[in-house]
Amino acid sequence: MKIAVDASGGEYAPHEIVKGAIKAAHEYDVEIVLVGKKAMLHLLAGKQLKKLKMKIANAPQNIEFGEHPMEALRQKPRSSIVIGINLVKEGKVDAFVSAGNTGAVLCAALFSLGKIEGVERPALASIVSVNRASPALLLDAGANADCRPSHLFQFARLGDIYAKNILGIESPRIGLLSNGSEETKGNRLVQESHQRIKNSGLNFIGNVEGNDLTKGVTDVIVTDGFTGNIVIKTVEGLGDSFIKVRSPDHSRNLRGRALLSDVGLGFLVKGMDYREYGGACLLGVNGNVIVSHGRSQAKAIKNAIGLANRAAEVELHRQLSEVNNG
Amino acid sequence: MKIAVDASGGEYAPHEIVKGAIKAAHEYDVEIVLVGKKAMLHLLAGKQLKKLKMKIANAPQNIEFGEHPMEALRQKPRSSIVIGINLVKEGKVDAFVSAGNTGAVLCAALFSLGKIEGVERPALASIVSVNRASPALLLDAGANADCRPSHLFQFARLGDIYAKNILGIESPRIGLLSNGSEETKGNRLVQESHQRIKNSGLNFIGNVEGNDLTKGVTDVIVTDGFTGNIVIKTVEGLGDSFIKVRSPDHSRNLRGRALLSDVGLGFLVKGMDYREYGGACLLGVNGNVIVSHGRSQAKAIKNAIGLANRAAEVELHRQLSEVNNG
Repeated sequence: MKIAVDASGGEYAPHEIVKGAIKAAHEYDVEIVLVGKKAMLHLLAGKQLKKLKMKIANAPQNIEFGEHPMEALRQKPRSSIVIGINLVKEGKVDAFVSAGNTGAVLCAALFSLGKIEGVERPALASIVSVNRASPALLLDAGANADCRPSHLFQFARLGDIYAKNILGIESPRIGLLSNGSEETKGNRLVQESHQRIKNSGLNFIGNVEGNDLTKGVTDVIVTDGFTGNIVIKTVEGLGDSFIKVRSPDHSRNLRGRALLSDVGLGFLVKGMDYREYGGACLLGVNGNVIVSHGRSQAKAIKNAIGLANRAAEVELHRQLSEVNNG
Repeated sequence: MKIAVDASGGEYAPHEIVKGAIKAAHEYDVEIVLVGKKAMLHLLAGKQLKKLKMKIANAPQNIEFGEHPMEALRQKPRSSIVIGINLVKEGKVDAFVSAGNTGAVLCAALFSLGKIEGVERPALASIVSVNRASPALLLDAGANADCRPSHLFQFARLGDIYAKNILGIESPRIGLLSNGSEETKGNRLVQESHQRIKNSGLNFIGNVEGNDLTKGVTDVIVTDGFTGNIVIKTVEGLGDSFIKVRSPDHSRNLRGRALLSDVGLGFLVKGMDYREYGGACLLGVNGNVIVSHGRSQAKAIKNAIGLANRAAEVELHRQLSEVNNG
């Protein structure tokens, strides 16, 4: 598979992105196209380019984190995000990975690749793995802050297809995130969505609560992008606080991860660590697009490329076009 | 202060409730009224009743967790919840603590005590202490699943008064929970609420994200009851998964808390443990009402009584009536 990687996107670009791409080229059967500033990338990747059959697509412009997505896309047609998405559109690569401005990636994907027919709102699907034995897919992780029941209904379908194809789960258990397990609980959006998903033929297990995330009771967690984003970031923040823990008086860095590993609890934070999963998949556009965490370093990028490779292998975006025939 | 305690409410009632009440009577300067089945309470509390000046208010009926709040209140006028709330209404006690059916406690408080003049929607305020050095108050933690901007605006004011009076913070930092820090981020509710809180004269620090919870950047986290409940339960679930951790193959119980304490990380889970804080305060009704976790055992109940005592001492519900004069 050919994977384009945004070498200019993310806090640790381009160094860590290139390192991650090199790791991925060793680990997976992929041909990588680094999208970014040509001279810099030649310098960083050096001999590895030829050795690992990596290519460079020159993108002299860069969209920063603070920029307004739509304006930035208009003003910077030669940015790594625009060029990377266009490589997908033109069929020159099978997937695109970016740790850059999420809003800009979403907009570029939406406007350049377009939505899969029948999909109202593409959603970001992210793995939440606070239960190691049974990681769950959460969507929407932040693409749509305001949703309607028809959107949540489609998220359930998109998540079902993802879980079958990427996670290899035969009959994914679909849960609807709510503030109570009874079907009468929830805000109006959730109450209406509950009834629609219930009658969908999916393996719907009903409402799930925040404390169910750790219990491994569901394979897919359906929620709006506002709530989903907050939950994902809450888990991430807690994971970070364990990994980078300092003593209460801030006098010393306790190296939480090492300490936890010492006592056999390392697996706990591993599940809460976004680096393990690399990125969220944008479901519902005509192409495979992976959005990585802005703070991604080599390991997260390598894993994101692995996910992109898997999505491309199973032709995920084509599978997702079955969303309306379920 | 006189505190009524629902001895029939919660998964571990009445044994653990009575144990917690006895602990509280030792630790705080409180007179406790146990509300529940008289004969059973005499049996459980025994000689402690006289020794600790504890009283019993007989409530032969009990509202279970699964019951519909309004129907249950109508059908069971002699339930511990109805009788406990009435003790507050009649001025016979200064506060009521219950680990029973939350919906029923909220309804009883709302209809029997009534709302503070000018308050549109009372809210549950719960301590989130994933950052031990700087615990934050989150509201609404679950009383109102659907909110309007005027509600979130009032939650900010109520939280400000609580933080000043109960947490002793002079100028509480108020944050609005959102899916991005910029003021243009959020769903429609948050975007509109942001503008109202911004112009309120409160010490508003703007939007906070899920991963800010651990950073101690805010004293009050304002959110709707749907999102708030999910966040609180997510943190609780993760805390539980650390405390009651099992090895990945389920072969042994690792006693997470003890192991973490061994390596000096005990403070991390302590902050995520609802038992430490005992309960959420219902803000905006004419009386002091504390809702404890349904799984509360003695320690949580003791702490909830401590919180009730503090709320009564500072006459919290009277302070809250200043909400419209801020």
